Parts: sequence; structure tokens; C-alpha cells
Amino acid sequence: MSHSIEITRTTSHKTKPAVDRLGFGIHFTDHMFIMDYEAGKGWYSPRIVPYQPISMDPAAKVFHYGQTVFEGLKAYRTNDEKILLFRPQSNFKRLNRSNVRLSIPAVDADLALEALQQLVAIDRDWIPAEEGTSLYIRPFIIATQAALGVAPSTKYQFIIIMSPVGAYYAEGVHPVKIFVESDYVRAVKGGTGDAKTAGNYAAGLKAQEEAAEKGYSQVLWLDGVHKKYIEEVGSMNVFFKINGTVVTPALNGSILEGITRHSMLQLLAHWNIPVEERTLSIQEIYDAQRDGTLEEAFGTGTAAVISPIGELNWKGEKLVIGDGGTGQLSQKLYDTLTGIQTGAVADPFGWTIEVRQ
Amino acid sequence: MSHSIEITRTTSHKTKPAVDRLGFGIHFTDHMFIMDYEAGKGWYSPRIVPYQPISMDPAAKVFHYGQTVFEGLKAYRTNDEKILLFRPQSNFKRLNRSNVRLSIPAVDADLALEALQQLVAIDRDWIPAEEGTSLYIRPFIIATQAALGVAPSTKYQFIIIMSPVGAYYAEGVHPVKIFVESDYVRAVKGGTGDAKTAGNYAAGLKAQEEAAEKGYSQVLWLDGVHKKYIEEVGSMNVFFKINGTVVTPALNGSILEGITRHSMLQLLAHWNIPVEERTLSIQEIYDAQRDGTLEEAFGTGTAAVISPIGELNWKGEKLVIGDGGTGQLSQKLYDTLTGIQTGAVADPFGWTIEVRQ
Repeated sequence: MSHSIEITRTTSHKTKPAVDRLGFGIHFTDHMFIMDYEAGKGWYSPRIVPYQPISMDPAAKVFHYGQTVFEGLKAYRTNDEKILLFRPQSNFKRLNRSNVRLSIPAVDADLALEALQQLVAIDRDWIPAEEGTSLYIRPFIIATQAALGVAPSTKYQFIIIMSPVGAYYAEGVHPVKIFVESDYVRAVKGGTGDAKTAGNYAAGLKAQEEAAEKGYSQVLWLDGVHKKYIEEVGSMNVFFKINGTVVTPALNGSILEGITRHSMLQLLAHWNIPVEERTLSIQEIYDAQRDGTLEEAFGTGTAAVISPIGELNWKGEKLVIGDGGTGQLSQKLYDTLTGIQTGAVADPFGWTIEVRQ
Repeated sequence: MSHSIEITRTTSHKTKPAVDRLGFGIHFTDHMFIMDYEAGKGWYSPRIVPYQPISMDPAAKVFHYGQTVFEGLKAYRTNDEKILLFRPQSNFKRLNRSNVRLSIPAVDADLALEALQQLVAIDRDWIPAEEGTSLYIRPFIIATQAALGVAPSTKYQFIIIMSPVGAYYAEGVHPVKIFVESDYVRAVKGGTGDAKTAGNYAAGLKAQEEAAEKGYSQVLWLDGVHKKYIEEVGSMNVFFKINGTVVTPALNGSILEGITRHSMLQLLAHWNIPVEERTLSIQEIYDAQRDGTLEEAFGTGTAAVISPIGELNWKGEKLVIGDGGTGQLSQKLYDTLTGIQTGAVADPFGWTIEVRQ
């Protein structure tokens, strides 16, 4: 099929924020991509337009029934002024898996990638160059039909917006304190936990707020059935290094299949470090600590890449991992993956693709 | 506090749809209510304006993290041209309970009720008079801050829109066939199931679609932990009459506290019919049927009031309830409640309030 994307360039470029004031997801580039869907017509009118508010009927289904999915990925500027995207095809594949769960029509992944290529190229000046910075990319789909019946929408918009983001670790990778959540539940098998959809995040806000009040950065989610098994940390996948083996919860239907998670697993296999994807109880982590075999713990996700866990608090019982600092393997994974993402380290996996400029 | 609501009337009234083409939630009245919130400022600028699209930044948090809550209630036109609202205070109380779960700031329930009074009065001509029709009212709150960090929004809009709706039962109350869902889960304790928020409905769309393909109107949700205990039916609470006693699942943290549910419980108590709110397994329903003690089953909610269940299908085992028709008690509850709602039957409970005209 033809991927004819209509382009309307802005006539008033926004002022770019200073690199030390970028933050995360608060500044947006000059342009955005939009495409419409109507039942019987399919996806139509792919276009790049100036970043602008969208006009929504207040009865649009996304407001009432949360029929929406999203993705998150990054573009990086290399030292030799190339622009790299990290595994974008994986994001669009996952978007379509999320679409199935949310009864949203599939998008053409090739068209989505082409749109992304063109959008990033147009706004290439927005990609910051400083170490640790990048361009965060947010593709998402919202149900726009103005109708209050509880049923899938007949109309959607697929939108891509982009935000230059600052270094997650301005002063080097550092560990965070995590509260093990025993009351609130993020998701359960049969629900939407393995789809990237708004409701999963809405469910977590309250727990995160309460953890912050107690002095913790994020929560560690336990399964909703037994409240025993480890699922995710905040909105990241989670890994533990126990006695030389790296263990991460298996994809069980309530955990998001993270692309950073998958990359970590591939890197570890490449290095011949033993890895297990399996059911993992919080008790096992506390037992390993008591036995002296708990070596490292970290979350993985697009925003931070690696977020080392320095301390856990499970029902008041605190556990400091290692010396409370960033573990050796965590640091090595961070350095390698960010190196590949920014073109500083060779990419033996074919993960990065270059944006045509 | 002062409830000064600014009013801007439309200059172009929309054409009202014919009463036989009303449907549910597809036509909207001439006006809507809006109020804004900003952190540090609180809720401000309550206003009634012509029904119109709202302008949203594509990075608004509601699109990405589902931070939104809603309510549903109805206004009825009585035979003597009064307008009645059914238990609106209960809706705004529940809205604020949902707000707590979703980390959304509380609204002033008195102001919300005053806004609703004024909005209904302005659009009073939109309330259909025919039997079974009503004005469906949808208050909702959406997170509008343009920021992609996973954290509660600093900005919100509280909006009320209204839709004239047709008779749910054009040809008399009739029962529906229900598929007992064993794979998908609506909600689990610790999640958002007891809040009226978008993600709960998003989670249910797929199951509903698959049930429809099999010829069933709705699904009966089982608990997400054991997949044994009855929770809700579609987006309604559910009741079973077994051996003279009416049983409904207890509010367990994953079930919505329905206002129609509460009204049914009060009516049944008023009539000295034994009622139990307790854990109820799907097996118990099938056992009761085998023993000949399963007498009636019905869902309750604002849209249908009562939706009798004629048939269940649990893992391929079909069960026809009673003679597959509408049970006597179901019909009596329907007639009484709709009678109170429309002013045709005396309201000993103080449920209805009259709209000032």
C-alpha cells in the first residue's frame, strides 16, 4: 500500500527549552502525526501537522470507557550526528497486541514506522545531544466516537507526539527505595495488565502517592491473586540477581512485555549469564538476602533504562540490597544498552535503525 | 460558599430527535456544565455553556494514564410536568469516593447538585415524556495536564453532559442471555473495581464482544482470584432469588456500589423479603437450579433499572432460569422503582428530588 503522508509544516517554531530544564514529557516538539479511523472505512488521512490541541466531543468514549492504548520509545542523537531509533518495530507490534485486548482496530506497523521516520526527521533539531538526553516518542490511540453505550468505538485517532527529555540520571545511575505493595493491585491475569493501556496506570497512581508519602520512589507490585509473587516495579519490569543467576518474573498475562526487559534478557544470554524467567515470590527475595545470595535488583523501562533498587520495604521489614549502591551488573547493562542506543557501542542485535534525514 | 454558575445560552438550538430514534447516549442536549481545576487554585469557573467540543492537548493525562471518573443518573418527566432527579446526592458522593481511588481532587457535592439542577432546568425541553424514556445525565472528570510523567494530574475538568434516551424496553421488560466469563477479569480487590472509572469498562469490552459473537448479551463476571464467585453482570450489579431469599454479592472491594442496587435492597427490606449480601459462587446457582430453588435472576443499573436474566452459559453448561421469562419479583421491582422515578408511585424513601423550573 502507499504510505502517502500529508505534511503541513508549522509556521511558528517553538522556543526549545534549555537542556537542563527538559524534564520528562513536559515539552513537546513542533509537529505531531495524526491518522483517523472510521468503521467501514479503516485508517485514513495519515498526516503530519503542527503540534496542536485536538478537538474532542465530551462524549468521546476514551473519556468514559478508557478505550486507549499507547507506546513509548526514544530517538537518540549519535556523536556523528546520526539519529537512531531503538527497536521501533517492537513497539508497533506490541501496540497491535494491546489493540487486540482493547478491541481497537490494528494499525499498519509499516505505515506507523514510516510516519515515525518522517516525524522524527522533521523535528530532528529537537533531539538533544547531551549525554543521557533523548527524544521520547509517544504513539497512542484514542476512541473518539461520541456515544455513551458501553461498546467498542467506531472512530479512533492514532497520534504520535514527541518530547525532548533530560538525563534520567543527571549525577550517574543511582538506586531507589521501593515499597512492596500489599493492598493495591495493578493488574491480574484476565485483566489488561499485559496490554499497554491507560487503566493500568490509573490503577497505580494511588499506591504510588501513598508510597511517596512514606519516602519511597515507587511500589513493587505483587500478584493480585496470592499477594505473594513479584510482578513489576512502578511501571517497569523487575530483575533480581541471586547467587549469580538473573531472575525476572515470567510473562504470566498480568505483566507488560517490556522491550527493555527483552533487550536485557538478550544481552544477558549474549554474555552467558544464567537467566531465569519464572514465578518469583517476595519471600524468596527476603530469604536470599538472609542467605547472603541476593546480589542486585533493578527495574527496566524506556524512561530510565535501568533503575537499580537499593532498598525494599515489605510490611515494615526493610531490606538493603548489596551495599545499597548500584550493582556491577546493573551498571554494565545500563552502560551497554545506552551505548547501543546512542551508537557509542556496536549493536550486534540489529536493534537500532537510523532515521533518514 | 457561593455557587455562582455563569450561564452562556446557545444561540442555535439543535433539532431534537424523534422519540423512537433516541437510542442511548447518542444525542446530546443544547448545553453542558464545565468547571476547571488547577493545583493550588482548586476548582474554579463553574459554567453552563452550549454543548461543544473541548480542546485537549494530545499529552493530556486522561489519554495516557486513564485518570478519570464518571457517574450516571437520570432525570424523569412526571405526568404533571414536574422533573425528578433520582438520588443525585448518592451519585456525587460516589463520584468523590471514586476520586479518592483515582487521586483526583474532590468536588463540592452541593455545587455539583446545584449545577445539575440549573443544567437540567435550562435543557428541560429535552426530557422526553413517553413511557420508559428519560434524560440520561453523565457527570465526569478528566485529567487535562499535558505531561507524560506517571503521576496524578495538576489540572482537571469536571463536565456534565446530558442525553435524552429511549425506552430500554420498547416492548416490555424482557430477559437476556448471559455468558459466564471464565477467562477475562473485570477487576480484583485492590484494583479499581469499586470506583466508577474508565479502565474497568475498557477491561470488559473484549469479553463482551466475544460473548456477543456467541449470541449472549452480556457477561457475568466472576472474581479474578478464584474464578468462582459472582461479581457483576455486564456493567450492572446482579441479584438471584433462591428459595424465597434474594441474594446479591457483598461489596468486597472489586464490585461497584450501585445506586440502583442499594435502592433494590431498600425496597426488598421494605417489603420484608429476606435479603442476603454475601459471597455467592456460580456453582451455588447451578446447584440451586438442580434443586429447583433458583427462582429469578436479574441485573440492576441506571440504564435498564432491571435486566432479567433468562439464561446462563457457564463453560458450555446452559441453565434456563424459571420459564426463561421475567420473574414476578423482577417485574415488581422494575414497576415500583420506575414508578417512583417517574412520580407515578409514592416515594416513601425520599429518593427523588424535584428540579426547580
